[in-house]
Amino acid sequence: LAVVGSSSSDPDLDAMCEQLGCRAIDAGFRIASGGLGGVMEAVSRGAHHSASYREGDVIGILPVHQHDAANQHVDIVISTGMGIARNLVLVSSADVVIAVRGGSGTLSEVAFAWQLGKPVVALCPSGGWAQKLAGETLDGRRSDSIIAASSVTEAIAAACQQLNATGQLNPTG
Amino acid sequence: LAVVGSSSSDPDLDAMCEQLGCRAIDAGFRIASGGLGGVMEAVSRGAHHSASYREGDVIGILPVHQHDAANQHVDIVISTGMGIARNLVLVSSADVVIAVRGGSGTLSEVAFAWQLGKPVVALCPSGGWAQKLAGETLDGRRSDSIIAASSVTEAIAAACQQLNATGQLNPTG
Amino acid sequence: LAVVGSSSSDPDLDAMCEQLGCRAIDAGFRIASGGLGGVMEAVSRGAHHSASYREGDVIGILPVHQHDAANQHVDIVISTGMGIARNLVLVSSADVVIAVRGGSGTLSEVAFAWQLGKPVVALCPSGGWAQKLAGETLDGRRSDSIIAASSVTEAIAAACQQLNATGQLNPTG
Amino acid sequence: LAVVGSSSSDPDLDAMCEQLGCRAIDAGFRIASGGLGGVMEAVSRGAHHSASYREGDVIGILPVHQHDAANQHVDIVISTGMGIARNLVLVSSADVVIAVRGGSGTLSEVAFAWQLGKPVVALCPSGGWAQKLAGETLDGRRSDSIIAASSVTEAIAAACQQLNATGQLNPTG
Repeated sequence: LAVVGSSSSDPDLDAMCEQLGCRAIDAGFRIASGGLGGVMEAVSRGAHHSASYREGDVIGILPVHQHDAANQHVDIVISTGMGIARNLVLVSSADVVIAVRGGSGTLSEVAFAWQLGKPVVALCPSGGWAQKLAGETLDGRRSDSIIAASSVTEAIAAACQQLNATGQLNPTG
Repeated sequence: LAVVGSSSSDPDLDAMCEQLGCRAIDAGFRIASGGLGGVMEAVSRGAHHSASYREGDVIGILPVHQHDAANQHVDIVISTGMGIARNLVLVSSADVVIAVRGGSGTLSEVAFAWQLGKPVVALCPSGGWAQKLAGETLDGRRSDSIIAASSVTEAIAAACQQLNATGQLNPTG
Repeated sequence: LAVVGSSSSDPDLDAMCEQLGCRAIDAGFRIASGGLGGVMEAVSRGAHHSASYREGDVIGILPVHQHDAANQHVDIVISTGMGIARNLVLVSSADVVIAVRGGSGTLSEVAFAWQLGKPVVALCPSGGWAQKLAGETLDGRRSDSIIAASSVTEAIAAACQQLNATGQLNPTG
Repeated sequence: LAVVGSSSSDPDLDAMCEQLGCRAIDAGFRIASGGLGGVMEAVSRGAHHSASYREGDVIGILPVHQHDAANQHVDIVISTGMGIARNLVLVSSADVVIAVRGGSGTLSEVAFAWQLGKPVVALCPSGGWAQKLAGETLDGRRSDSIIAASSVTEAIAAACQQLNATGQLNPTG
């Protein structure tokens, strides 16, 4: 499961992200993010709150080479050294992508996920591009749309359903 | 000048793109595109119609390693072998980006251009994401917006104005 | 710990690689490789033989987008979709790089590891570029050299020593 | 034609590189390099000394996004923003690669060129990895070897011969 979202946050969004991270691990996913601050950090932190958490469940895919740029809740650092081209590595490595708030970086990730045929779930109450794109189709190459989730619970349920629909048994992302 | 747009086209859009390519060369730009078909090909073809065209003015930045994947109007092939990560190379190499119609690939390019601080001009009558994003701001990091152009003439004028505003004297893209 | 090596193998090399994978997990490392066949597969398989193995310890960093291109012993798939540019992601993500046999792909990885300041251990009996570069310095930017290991045991010992020397406490690769 | 080589130089090497750049343009090539200093700058400067030079013949493929990182002799800036992954873009875009002196960065470029099936010419008197690899095969995937050139004249002649052998009529690199 990849979570893509803003590098800035606020207390309400942090709480929502922590819940998202925790519930994703509860549901048996690993979590990959861009490994930095904001949404990426809050989701990574939340993952550790799950009773099902195992060391290695939180993956951070960094734009830089320096491992210590990762937030402290990341277990496995993938440092690309390729700048924002890492956005592509992140969504490609995921089975399902959840978008949280998000500016132009997140928009590029949702666009890539769409091109790669990955299911995308938009957490609507987080605002940003997630809210704007919920329910939309980005172009004619796919017949489905970006799935609108009105809560963390709905987002995780949608992610699980997508994973089952695509026949994945051993989710790594 | 980078032109980003759909890999499919139609006769009306082709005509608009050829005019765009020709006018861009007239205005003293080089043209970079993704080097493949559709909008990319029509713009590259149009460049050759300009009286100011010099061999070397049309650059194609390919996702694959194979040079012969480029359309025949490309003078200089940059083959990245990095798949759609080449979208980032394309917009980064440009001084100004013009979006034409466009699906999710173009959307990723506009998002990257925004992140990199590149001026983006949307050719509204082409439809697609260009039309949808014209006049919009993608997030709070920039105070400007995507420039709406209602014709090829307006698009080229806006591109020239942006270039002058940023102090570039010797445009290479 | 990243293991870089040939995509083809033979029974003797397979046995050496399985031992390397097992001992690396015994020593507390995670193992990252290019995720495909040959050396990459044998090392990944061997990791599962360790008593210390935990699900998530074997990472495969693929050149393609397709997750099912990974060998079946990979726990966590990072699919870059960037072709052989993934070689850079692999060595960048590692704390220590072990080279096993190796042709030109491995050579590019050792060269990148050197540029990035990563310790490189060459498993000499495996042959290939590993053997040729053991004890060498690649250029003047570093005062150390590629560490020659005459056995799997020596290679793991050297990797541990390098990790301690660089002050890493929680190796993820 | 891609020229790969050290980012540092000295007066003798500079003179050799300027001659190489000039002769390459004389022979009808465009020149692509990494766009920075040292060998890259001297070759780019030399290109302008050719009577056949046309604006647009000198391409610099940068690791960064900033166009002004290119040396002043570069006509067309391709800014990848992907760090040393740009080494792959450079050799992929070339029809023939000439290696000049070179440390580990050049070594990664020669290794990539080999993997991609590009002819590689080593300018022996420049020293470095060029000298060490001249006449060598990097692995069993190719039956040819890195071509040893004992002078700039020989290097350009070998590049022309390789281009003709592979049937390219309109060299762009």
